[in-house]
Amino acid sequence: MLEQKRIRDFGITIGEMEPGAKNSITDIEGIKVGHTTVSHGSAQTGVTAIFPQDRNLFQNKITAAVHVINGFGKSMGLMQVEEMGVIETPILLTNTLSIGVASNVLIQYMLDQNKDIGDTTSTVNPMVFECNDAYLNDIRGSHIKPEHVMNALNNADSDFKEGSVGAATGMSCYKLKGGIGTASRRIKLGEEEGHLGALVMTNMGQKRDLTIAGKQIGQDIINTDGDDKQPDEGSIIIILATDLPLTERQLKRVAKRAILGLSRTGSYIGNGSGEVVLAFTTKNSVSHYKQATIESFNRIHEKELDLLFRAAAESTEEAILNSMITAKRTTGRHGHTRSSLTEFAHLFDN
Amino acid sequence: MLEQKRIRDFGITIGEMEPGAKNSITDIEGIKVGHTTVSHGSAQTGVTAIFPQDRNLFQNKITAAVHVINGFGKSMGLMQVEEMGVIETPILLTNTLSIGVASNVLIQYMLDQNKDIGDTTSTVNPMVFECNDAYLNDIRGSHIKPEHVMNALNNADSDFKEGSVGAATGMSCYKLKGGIGTASRRIKLGEEEGHLGALVMTNMGQKRDLTIAGKQIGQDIINTDGDDKQPDEGSIIIILATDLPLTERQLKRVAKRAILGLSRTGSYIGNGSGEVVLAFTTKNSVSHYKQATIESFNRIHEKELDLLFRAAAESTEEAILNSMITAKRTTGRHGHTRSSLTEFAHLFDN
Amino acid sequence: MLEQKRIRDFGITIGEMEPGAKNSITDIEGIKVGHTTVSHGSAQTGVTAIFPQDRNLFQNKITAAVHVINGFGKSMGLMQVEEMGVIETPILLTNTLSIGVASNVLIQYMLDQNKDIGDTTSTVNPMVFECNDAYLNDIRGSHIKPEHVMNALNNADSDFKEGSVGAATGMSCYKLKGGIGTASRRIKLGEEEGHLGALVMTNMGQKRDLTIAGKQIGQDIINTDGDDKQPDEGSIIIILATDLPLTERQLKRVAKRAILGLSRTGSYIGNGSGEVVLAFTTKNSVSHYKQATIESFNRIHEKELDLLFRAAAESTEEAILNSMITAKRTTGRHGHTRSSLTEFAHLFDN
Amino acid sequence: MLEQKRIRDFGITIGEMEPGAKNSITDIEGIKVGHTTVSHGSAQTGVTAIFPQDRNLFQNKITAAVHVINGFGKSMGLMQVEEMGVIETPILLTNTLSIGVASNVLIQYMLDQNKDIGDTTSTVNPMVFECNDAYLNDIRGSHIKPEHVMNALNNADSDFKEGSVGAATGMSCYKLKGGIGTASRRIKLGEEEGHLGALVMTNMGQKRDLTIAGKQIGQDIINTDGDDKQPDEGSIIIILATDLPLTERQLKRVAKRAILGLSRTGSYIGNGSGEVVLAFTTKNSVSHYKQATIESFNRIHEKELDLLFRAAAESTEEAILNSMITAKRTTGRHGHTRSSLTEFAHLFDN
Repeated sequence: MLEQKRIRDFGITIGEMEPGAKNSITDIEGIKVGHTTVSHGSAQTGVTAIFPQDRNLFQNKITAAVHVINGFGKSMGLMQVEEMGVIETPILLTNTLSIGVASNVLIQYMLDQNKDIGDTTSTVNPMVFECNDAYLNDIRGSHIKPEHVMNALNNADSDFKEGSVGAATGMSCYKLKGGIGTASRRIKLGEEEGHLGALVMTNMGQKRDLTIAGKQIGQDIINTDGDDKQPDEGSIIIILATDLPLTERQLKRVAKRAILGLSRTGSYIGNGSGEVVLAFTTKNSVSHYKQATIESFNRIHEKELDLLFRAAAESTEEAILNSMITAKRTTGRHGHTRSSLTEFAHLFDN
Repeated sequence: MLEQKRIRDFGITIGEMEPGAKNSITDIEGIKVGHTTVSHGSAQTGVTAIFPQDRNLFQNKITAAVHVINGFGKSMGLMQVEEMGVIETPILLTNTLSIGVASNVLIQYMLDQNKDIGDTTSTVNPMVFECNDAYLNDIRGSHIKPEHVMNALNNADSDFKEGSVGAATGMSCYKLKGGIGTASRRIKLGEEEGHLGALVMTNMGQKRDLTIAGKQIGQDIINTDGDDKQPDEGSIIIILATDLPLTERQLKRVAKRAILGLSRTGSYIGNGSGEVVLAFTTKNSVSHYKQATIESFNRIHEKELDLLFRAAAESTEEAILNSMITAKRTTGRHGHTRSSLTEFAHLFDN
Repeated sequence: MLEQKRIRDFGITIGEMEPGAKNSITDIEGIKVGHTTVSHGSAQTGVTAIFPQDRNLFQNKITAAVHVINGFGKSMGLMQVEEMGVIETPILLTNTLSIGVASNVLIQYMLDQNKDIGDTTSTVNPMVFECNDAYLNDIRGSHIKPEHVMNALNNADSDFKEGSVGAATGMSCYKLKGGIGTASRRIKLGEEEGHLGALVMTNMGQKRDLTIAGKQIGQDIINTDGDDKQPDEGSIIIILATDLPLTERQLKRVAKRAILGLSRTGSYIGNGSGEVVLAFTTKNSVSHYKQATIESFNRIHEKELDLLFRAAAESTEEAILNSMITAKRTTGRHGHTRSSLTEFAHLFDN
Repeated sequence: MLEQKRIRDFGITIGEMEPGAKNSITDIEGIKVGHTTVSHGSAQTGVTAIFPQDRNLFQNKITAAVHVINGFGKSMGLMQVEEMGVIETPILLTNTLSIGVASNVLIQYMLDQNKDIGDTTSTVNPMVFECNDAYLNDIRGSHIKPEHVMNALNNADSDFKEGSVGAATGMSCYKLKGGIGTASRRIKLGEEEGHLGALVMTNMGQKRDLTIAGKQIGQDIINTDGDDKQPDEGSIIIILATDLPLTERQLKRVAKRAILGLSRTGSYIGNGSGEVVLAFTTKNSVSHYKQATIESFNRIHEKELDLLFRAAAESTEEAILNSMITAKRTTGRHGHTRSSLTEFAHLFDN
């Protein structure tokens, strides 16, 4: 990853499992992440694009599942993932009122790459996730333009920045600055080796609840930083990925454990906070056109899932902390400011 | 309704219940429907807007529920309806690749009417439903523009056209011309009176399966009209409305019965055909801002639901037939043509 | 099957697909069905047992899915099927207040065959489905005893009786005599061949709604037989099986199409009528103990599901009609009588 | 509550909200809890009964919702709660292989109190929840007899014991002794006051994960107590109750937050561990027989739910700790022993 001080660099270790080489969702081969950051005055927003694999996604769909913890929000594409068990486009993150422009560009991007879509074959299901960055960003101003979306798609890389970048430019987390964060865990099952990684966009929580590695430091932060008692109307988007062969049902079970990591950072999942998890595997891809009437796929034995459950919880918790510790103090709309968690690093103790 | 020959005018009666005065979803007071039709050459598409009530929908949310029969598709807003039990925008129908533009315009429409959205309060959840009209329409050509969406919102009325209009301009049903259709039933429960109405956008089915009032006439149509053996990759959108006070759980139960009406027209609900039902009541509206900590609402006794279940099935079946019998023979993209069901009315017998 | 006159013997053909050799769920190799019939005076009830395969079910679990159409009822085991995607016991059907005794015996039956359950390994999830036969049966009298359950398990065979036998002894369907019914369809997908079969226990519906092959004959029956206007508080249990390799997600999609067949016999799915579908495949069995970290499975390409959807609808519709036409006029509790559909066969015309 | 040293007595405070007078689910008026404990040699099991209100539950149903976190298990009655939004019997907890006997007795109990069930009206949906106590209990021995179930129903009281009693006699939690535990929170919403309470039966978790008020003490316990590395095949049942008027949808949202409390005690929700939540309100009861076509109900404004979400998480976490700290060291089947958390109280620090 790109030269940023992450939560482990502050002496905080989450859980017992070993991280992957980059401690990133991009430890899973083929995954790339790109950002467009829009940050000027009251425009504090952006786009983040996640590619699950290098190959054409429409032709080679990725096995996936969703789990909705709190369905407040307008993330797109979930219904078809639930029905068909696959995703067939890159994944976009942006602010909640820009889902229209994001989905429009993503559809056009897929049309350009696949001349058969909507002509000789069916259409395509765009995956767009969102949080509400209205505290720092003039969300009514529609600052995301088509070129911002294209740019995020075009600059995706296996190394990428965390913190107040891309779609998370204007996000808030525990009423501090939120961000994009990632983490991963190695999975060793007998002779099989693989990874589970999480990428989060964090925008939820009350300041007093913030908990780091079991220590609730929110109140201490309030003592110097003041509080913001507005209700939790934020949201978090959690993307989990693995390079082990799971089925869509197994991925859904893994997705359900992401909330464990979220919980341990202190959230109570407010009424107005949408929490959505997407989990996918880079194995078990499904061809759009039938190659054979009967196809073969692999899955790990159900009893082996325990390790992936633990990895999902640990990765999510660490990714949330990474999203905050790499995020910078930001001032935006109406002069609203979110402090950076780095300002309170002296409160961590281990 | 507007001077169109409907299925009852051909001597076909569906079910045993009495229709409302207009035999339309607009028998429920306050509901309005508007269309924009785009029909020139290979552009055969459009937009349909449905207003559930006259009042500001964001401030006075409508109790609602969704039921997904086959989740192939990209209808927007469902997740939040499931979680919160309300809709807060008009409902848009359009072609499947125009959901981006439709949601964008709908969001802007809501922002214009509500200065608080995204500024001093949370954002808004746009409801956009879609089917794939690619057989007749050049769907890759993005023929729906923002002004088409605004126009449909602006010309909504309690009288509206059925058939090959609005969002259904390019839709196909049982490989004949599909359309917008509606029907309603009166509900009398003791001293209480009300209605249940259905509005459908029809785009599903194989020609040989078409069944009218129990008579499978599809094969007879094929004998003169020829067949189109492409798989069922169409979809149907079903909107149910009532002016009786139901809860969101009860509405979901009602929504589940729409499939009974769909089934009786012959569909087998193909793999690639998205079937989505939205049900709402114009009673039990929910204010965005708290008026009181504890609010009161009404519901009919559960045992009274049987009549609404029957009404949902009957209205859906009749609305589907109305959508077809009012639709006109249409030629579009690549010279593809869909015949009108009216051409085969001599096959109905009773 | 055992020398009973079935709906095809009355000249009624449902759908367009070809039935299997027996036109029975037992066309899928390994499936066996057993009945215990309790029929004396006001005790009109029983037990039906379905074995999905010959092998030890706990050690070799069967891939399965459930779909709840109307969740009024107390069928057991559904939650774990949804989570784990397998069944691990035979399937029992009985009357609704006998689920306790049925599950008790089924648990003991599994314990006897598997010394490891509850000792060195986890426990076992019994599958018990039920309908309410109280119109004909003194359901408060607890007439099902453990030996009745064991007997049904012990006498299972690939040939079995339909109609007013086993668990369906006291069931009513469209206020005529209900029963156990079955039907199947051959599936040919390229070079692959297989079957889909349905077995139903029918106990739902209003008499006036009864529809046979598109012809609503209920009112004609009422003209001679009288009506019973009690609400629909019955239920139907639908078991679907295939010998093609589907995943649990695909099986759930197939299960959702059973309602199409149900619908075409006239049901409106009453408030108090529980409609539950279980679908399983005899391929893709899952070993209880890990054989390998990563296991391989097969599935048919998603686009091939259309034929299974049609087969599910056709088999369910025909199985319902078979359940009624093989059922005999029965008098039970309080002298209540249900006529047999055979008494009205002159009303069928084709 | 009955003279037991609870977690607060050890100086541990969970969360920020104030407990009810008893810090118990029975702070909600009308709720009663009864136990039967079976504890001799290798028989270490029992039954716990929970009455949501004093009135006849079948005639006056209680508004309720379920949330399944991990659907490994055979809890009964969930399907109908999901469909109808009510419970109509007391709630039983027992060991997983005794659900048959428990449901049988509960059905008979309801029949005895309601002569109309299964005679002149529909039947009744028994609520039975379970965990697997096979580590300490000879679960294959069927030690729960009908009189044990009746006894638990008959001795219910608003004061009741926690710990290794009733259904939890043989349960394990974090590989220490599990139990029944309870806790509550006061809710003040403007002028309205009420409570939310939790009752748990704890049987899940790995020893090293045990976390108390943010401090992971599991490893320290292992250092003296040794470890048991068997997989997490336990389960937890969580019952939430409130005396504020919520709808079933709102109750489901509250139920989803119980996992937050569970998570904070250290669980990763193992593959074989069933986690099921039932939430009900003692307000908004629903009469079995129609009193009026349209009935009136109350609900708190959605934005007020945040406080109930917090209360659900806090109560669940504290109830889990209470279940353990009141449980006694127990030796059962095969001489297996579970230590009591009290033996490690010196590891708590605050």
